[in-house]
Amino acid sequence: MSTPRVGVIGGGQLARMMQPAAINLGIQLRVLAKSSSDSAAQVIPDCLIGAHDDWESLIKFAEGCDVITFDHEHVPTEFLAKLQELGFAVRPGPHALKFAQDKIVMREALSKLGIPCPLWQEIIAIEDIDSFASTAGYPFVLKSARGGYDGNGVWVVDDKSAAEKVFTEITNRQNQVLAEQLVPFKRELAAQVARSPHGQSVAYPVVQSAQTNGICHEVISPSPDLSDERAIAAQEIALRIAKELDVTGMLAVELFDTGSEILVNELAMRPHNSGHWSMDGSVTSQFENHLRAILDWPLGSPAATSPATVMVNLLGKDVGDLHTAFRHVMARDPGIKVHLYGKEVRPGRKIGHVNVSGDNIEDLLARAWHAADYLTGVIDE
Amino acid sequence: MSTPRVGVIGGGQLARMMQPAAINLGIQLRVLAKSSSDSAAQVIPDCLIGAHDDWESLIKFAEGCDVITFDHEHVPTEFLAKLQELGFAVRPGPHALKFAQDKIVMREALSKLGIPCPLWQEIIAIEDIDSFASTAGYPFVLKSARGGYDGNGVWVVDDKSAAEKVFTEITNRQNQVLAEQLVPFKRELAAQVARSPHGQSVAYPVVQSAQTNGICHEVISPSPDLSDERAIAAQEIALRIAKELDVTGMLAVELFDTGSEILVNELAMRPHNSGHWSMDGSVTSQFENHLRAILDWPLGSPAATSPATVMVNLLGKDVGDLHTAFRHVMARDPGIKVHLYGKEVRPGRKIGHVNVSGDNIEDLLARAWHAADYLTGVIDE
Repeated sequence: MSTPRVGVIGGGQLARMMQPAAINLGIQLRVLAKSSSDSAAQVIPDCLIGAHDDWESLIKFAEGCDVITFDHEHVPTEFLAKLQELGFAVRPGPHALKFAQDKIVMREALSKLGIPCPLWQEIIAIEDIDSFASTAGYPFVLKSARGGYDGNGVWVVDDKSAAEKVFTEITNRQNQVLAEQLVPFKRELAAQVARSPHGQSVAYPVVQSAQTNGICHEVISPSPDLSDERAIAAQEIALRIAKELDVTGMLAVELFDTGSEILVNELAMRPHNSGHWSMDGSVTSQFENHLRAILDWPLGSPAATSPATVMVNLLGKDVGDLHTAFRHVMARDPGIKVHLYGKEVRPGRKIGHVNVSGDNIEDLLARAWHAADYLTGVIDE
Repeated sequence: MSTPRVGVIGGGQLARMMQPAAINLGIQLRVLAKSSSDSAAQVIPDCLIGAHDDWESLIKFAEGCDVITFDHEHVPTEFLAKLQELGFAVRPGPHALKFAQDKIVMREALSKLGIPCPLWQEIIAIEDIDSFASTAGYPFVLKSARGGYDGNGVWVVDDKSAAEKVFTEITNRQNQVLAEQLVPFKRELAAQVARSPHGQSVAYPVVQSAQTNGICHEVISPSPDLSDERAIAAQEIALRIAKELDVTGMLAVELFDTGSEILVNELAMRPHNSGHWSMDGSVTSQFENHLRAILDWPLGSPAATSPATVMVNLLGKDVGDLHTAFRHVMARDPGIKVHLYGKEVRPGRKIGHVNVSGDNIEDLLARAWHAADYLTGVIDE
């Protein structure tokens, strides 16, 4: 029997959470991890230790893989192009991934497609700060074009001197600078789709997400108080981006909902935190559909299996041993689904999440937050 | 962070299917497998190659495990007792496991508890055949007391000479002989419970199962046409057996439904084929609850997440490559959940299963059987 082998570059929790889906489908995963203690390396036998930006590691890793995919977006585009030239299937391909790797390239592409974005401008020279400030006004947002994640690489600047300081800081690190309007959003939404090389796409229910210090903390699926019309509009934006940028695998489109319009905030071309609810709340999780999509297999139903699912991330606090707190959380709520990433607990670090499904969103939020707060030591009763 | 390590003796699909649950809960599995190509060895990095009936392998494997459990019931009781004496937590313990290892010991215990069983008798000498035949009549069933699985070790005998032949065959292999009435059952049911060392138990919905050549082939959850009263009676039988025999982990009680009464057929003290539906159809799968139970963690809700779930096993036919058939099955039915065990396809061998959940059992049966038949090559359209 020919077992497909999927190579995942990066050993974080996203690679780890692909493994349950891979086990069920009879897919063999191979992971390229920095260390054998990485989240994914703990649970995937076929593990190679190496760096994602080292060609020797990449080519050794790629040999024998049917498809190569990612836990993160930080692999140098030129290496991915080289792998493709050598005949390896890289999904998403570098021609698509570059839009998730570089926020300026992304803004240019989306604006060209007429997809609604916040007011933005590339800040090439320090003088550009004034011109952007004159249209967007202070405070506004500066971002490093490449390498950011979870709120890293994003600064809100209140005045010219702060903006110039951030500009210098970013450019000193050989990175480009993107300025964006500080969108007065009412809330954030996320639209996720899976797309396969032969062009099949499925759209997940649009979710509402809330961040703490730039880190995704709470997701409600489906988003409350969202009309069918606006939900479909958000799904259409994600489907259109996936098609136009030729994305394969999962695409997450993070959105600002200003009340009157929906603007694209960020793109992620891989399973994404805003889709972790799907592990317990949909027919086909984002991890299973990512694998099916990159293997060019027909996609699974993204339909929800219950009226609502709430996800809350576990962000590390002072409590090092999560398993002790398990007993109380599990005894209190037999319906809670705990997911741990096998990561050492450090303050603010994503170390797991909880999901809970049911009818009443208020009730689900209370249950999920209690579990998350108890597990991380925010509360002790 | 203290990650619990659970040792699983046996590298089959049951051990394999514990791994997704273990990954989510942050539990490290260690497996004792016969070969690195075993179903579970493919997906569990901490894998020791050795035999389940070799003391040196067992003790090497056990070192460092917080709890030891099983993929099958074939580990010699004396070795398990020895592990316990050395301080290892063995769950279920040998004092419970012996009732699943030896069908005569099981019948004696259940009869003593007043739990309804088919008419039975241990056949110690060849003369006992006549005495059993005079009460039960031909045809009846002869079973080897130990070592049977999936219909192996079970014979239906039509007359005295056939019975004597089987008796000689079994006793020649140093095994004991159990005679049982051939129950004129209308259908088979199964009741599954999880029980933890501190005595918490949960009962799964009672399911209807159908076998082909002694191998479980189809499960409908919950069982159709079963009154609440009879379903609860079946759950109570399973809960009582778990408690009285001090079972820890999952217990499956296979039952005959004669229309007028429910009789116990077999016991399994581990996740069981009749509970595979729970992987996609319940809040907490049998694999997750097995791990939670043996770790003495509070148990998860066994409630169904949809009105019905149908499971059909994939029994190997002539088609060696299941992944090619995937594309058609997945394209035809985006709601089908395919589970493959990474096993080489051999005729009659369990190589996977499909689950499908929904409202209408007829529809679910048609969808699950189509997928299973297509995947195994019984049909090609």
